Amino acid sequence: MEYATLNEKTALEFARAKTKVFSADSQLECKEIGDGNLNMVFRVSETKGSGASVIIKQSLPHARIDDSIVAPLDRARIESEMLVLHDRNCPGLAPKIFSYDREMYAIIMEDLSDHIVLRKGLIAGTVYPKLAEHIGEFLARSLFFTSDLGMDPLKKKVVQKSFVNPDLCKITEDLVFSNPYFDAANNKIDPEIRERAEENWKDAALKREVAKLKEKFMTQGQALIHGDLHTGSVFVTAESTKAFDPEFGFFGPMGFDVGAIIGNLVLNHASQLWHKKDKHEREVFREYLLRSFREIWYVFEEQFRSLWHEHVKTPLEMNPEYLEDYMKRLLADSIGYAGCKMTRRIVGLAQVEDIRSIPDAEVRARAQISVLDTAREFIMRREEYQNIDEAVETVLKFAVTQ
Amino acid sequence: MEYATLNEKTALEFARAKTKVFSADSQLECKEIGDGNLNMVFRVSETKGSGASVIIKQSLPHARIDDSIVAPLDRARIESEMLVLHDRNCPGLAPKIFSYDREMYAIIMEDLSDHIVLRKGLIAGTVYPKLAEHIGEFLARSLFFTSDLGMDPLKKKVVQKSFVNPDLCKITEDLVFSNPYFDAANNKIDPEIRERAEENWKDAALKREVAKLKEKFMTQGQALIHGDLHTGSVFVTAESTKAFDPEFGFFGPMGFDVGAIIGNLVLNHASQLWHKKDKHEREVFREYLLRSFREIWYVFEEQFRSLWHEHVKTPLEMNPEYLEDYMKRLLADSIGYAGCKMTRRIVGLAQVEDIRSIPDAEVRARAQISVLDTAREFIMRREEYQNIDEAVETVLKFAVTQ
Repeated sequence: MEYATLNEKTALEFARAKTKVFSADSQLECKEIGDGNLNMVFRVSETKGSGASVIIKQSLPHARIDDSIVAPLDRARIESEMLVLHDRNCPGLAPKIFSYDREMYAIIMEDLSDHIVLRKGLIAGTVYPKLAEHIGEFLARSLFFTSDLGMDPLKKKVVQKSFVNPDLCKITEDLVFSNPYFDAANNKIDPEIRERAEENWKDAALKREVAKLKEKFMTQGQALIHGDLHTGSVFVTAESTKAFDPEFGFFGPMGFDVGAIIGNLVLNHASQLWHKKDKHEREVFREYLLRSFREIWYVFEEQFRSLWHEHVKTPLEMNPEYLEDYMKRLLADSIGYAGCKMTRRIVGLAQVEDIRSIPDAEVRARAQISVLDTAREFIMRREEYQNIDEAVETVLKFAVTQ
Repeated sequence: MEYATLNEKTALEFARAKTKVFSADSQLECKEIGDGNLNMVFRVSETKGSGASVIIKQSLPHARIDDSIVAPLDRARIESEMLVLHDRNCPGLAPKIFSYDREMYAIIMEDLSDHIVLRKGLIAGTVYPKLAEHIGEFLARSLFFTSDLGMDPLKKKVVQKSFVNPDLCKITEDLVFSNPYFDAANNKIDPEIRERAEENWKDAALKREVAKLKEKFMTQGQALIHGDLHTGSVFVTAESTKAFDPEFGFFGPMGFDVGAIIGNLVLNHASQLWHKKDKHEREVFREYLLRSFREIWYVFEEQFRSLWHEHVKTPLEMNPEYLEDYMKRLLADSIGYAGCKMTRRIVGLAQVEDIRSIPDAEVRARAQISVLDTAREFIMRREEYQNIDEAVETVLKFAVTQ
């Protein structure tokens, strides 16, 4: 089947041919529902009967966000293989995959239409009581079982080869690490915060630390990371949490995934200055956000330690002092990468709805600057933090309360 | 050409068929000259006329050192591609390659019979005045040009895939990092130093630091490293230095290569307690060894910085503070890995002739213990050292002078 971009008609036929979800005489309908940048996304469902449905996700030869950034079709293979691994290592915390067509670069997967994107839920001020527990577990299991700790190091090296992902890594290297720290053409900087953004460009110590985090992102093949685990890559209901869109997956530093999700909670925390108008409601929701921030780390750490004790049996690595050192470095990496992810969402090309949907330029600027200040301290002090609570204190220190 | 282990007769025919070094009517002779563990090595030369000659190196399905360690035939491809890269990036500092046969896993290369193995030269007490300059240059150029600093990061990720080297990495992971730190079956520990070796096994802080260095070896794809750059992998004359045997090559931490060569100078330094009987001659030769130890680092650092200034043009990385931090981390890694390489040569499976050729058990034990003490301090204090001279002071602190 030669590659051709799917449309609603061909996607419907594709779903019927490639899965056994639908009965032969069923009536199907298909809708394009994509709002991402890199893919075509369709929902195919029965109009009568069981109402069964699937999602088709097809890679586009070029990213929609910017035609000058080439995103390879191969990312569909990487994404589908990532999803299969996530489904295996973290059952229930990622969508099921029904089929993957290598020629069409198209995946057919579980329909999660009853879920919503976490970012939208948080902007609306919805509390997800299971979120932190689920995300902490997803992080611990997906990262541990693809590291040298939870996988045979011989096998890991071979698996690592098939997840080399140069083009999507380059997007991250440029948009997360490089461009926000100089006057790059594709930065988007509101005039109200231009001066604060330029402070970062003159801050040699900050740029040194970001360069080190970028270097680690480019060289440390610690585990198969999701690579883009912000709140727009998580689907939720009150009871369910599914990590999604792992097309940026490659063997990188674990802290990049932890940092992505907790950094995006800080972005939402700042944005509530606008979204939750009532001061008391705002305080309550922000407490929930910071509780989730802490709890994600605590669940991650507890489960990671538990997996370590269960699976690490090699004499050199069984040393408790090594485990303590490992966890301390994971904490530092996570907080540092959170800072990088926060900064890029304020001054970089791809921003977030939490902040961008604040129509009042003055309120938005105050929220943005609080994020930049928090991010800077996260990056600079990451190795000093003794625990996640100290990072929460940093968020509170810079938060604008009214 | 189906794989078959070469013998002197077939190797001669192979050399004639695969290169244009010899004239059609030349008389050739062939001798097996291998003394390594992983390969068959032959020298093929004209008996009259030009006297032209080549070396054939063929991979064996199993390492000779221990049949339970499988060394893949694929290492011949990796080695030949490494040698081609070394020849390109460091002209004159690695042998020329005339031909590589993928089916036979055999390389035909420049004959360096006029060179001797550096380890043997140093045991004999020979001074090589160009050694440090050549090795420093080899390290700087081979490492810089295969890192994200000296190579397009997109291209580096693709090249990295073809140098994934699981089996040979496992040999290093086991023999250098794991086994020396517990009572592994294949350790070789002289009874006179058993007690000192066991001190390391009880030293949780030392084992934590070794575990971190092992983790970095397993995860940090910083540059295409030689992977086994001890003094037995360097061929020398008074004027010439050639790095050799890069079959352990993969993308790892740069400091592992720097540490390998300087660590082996410390081993030789300790062994001179026996080899140079005259105290004054011993002092003079040891001064040469420590001068080389320092100079290798200084030449490496100077050339690496110079390449950095010439080639690094990306805004985030051009920051001088980042360069300083990078060099400081390289120094720490180099000294730490030197310590690991020294320890494994005293208590591990594969030891070195410098030490093993000391027939007097008491003298040998004093030399061995001085190496273990120096190595421990190298590993524990690696991040404190401000410069290479402080590491030289550590060598002098533990050296046995008579």
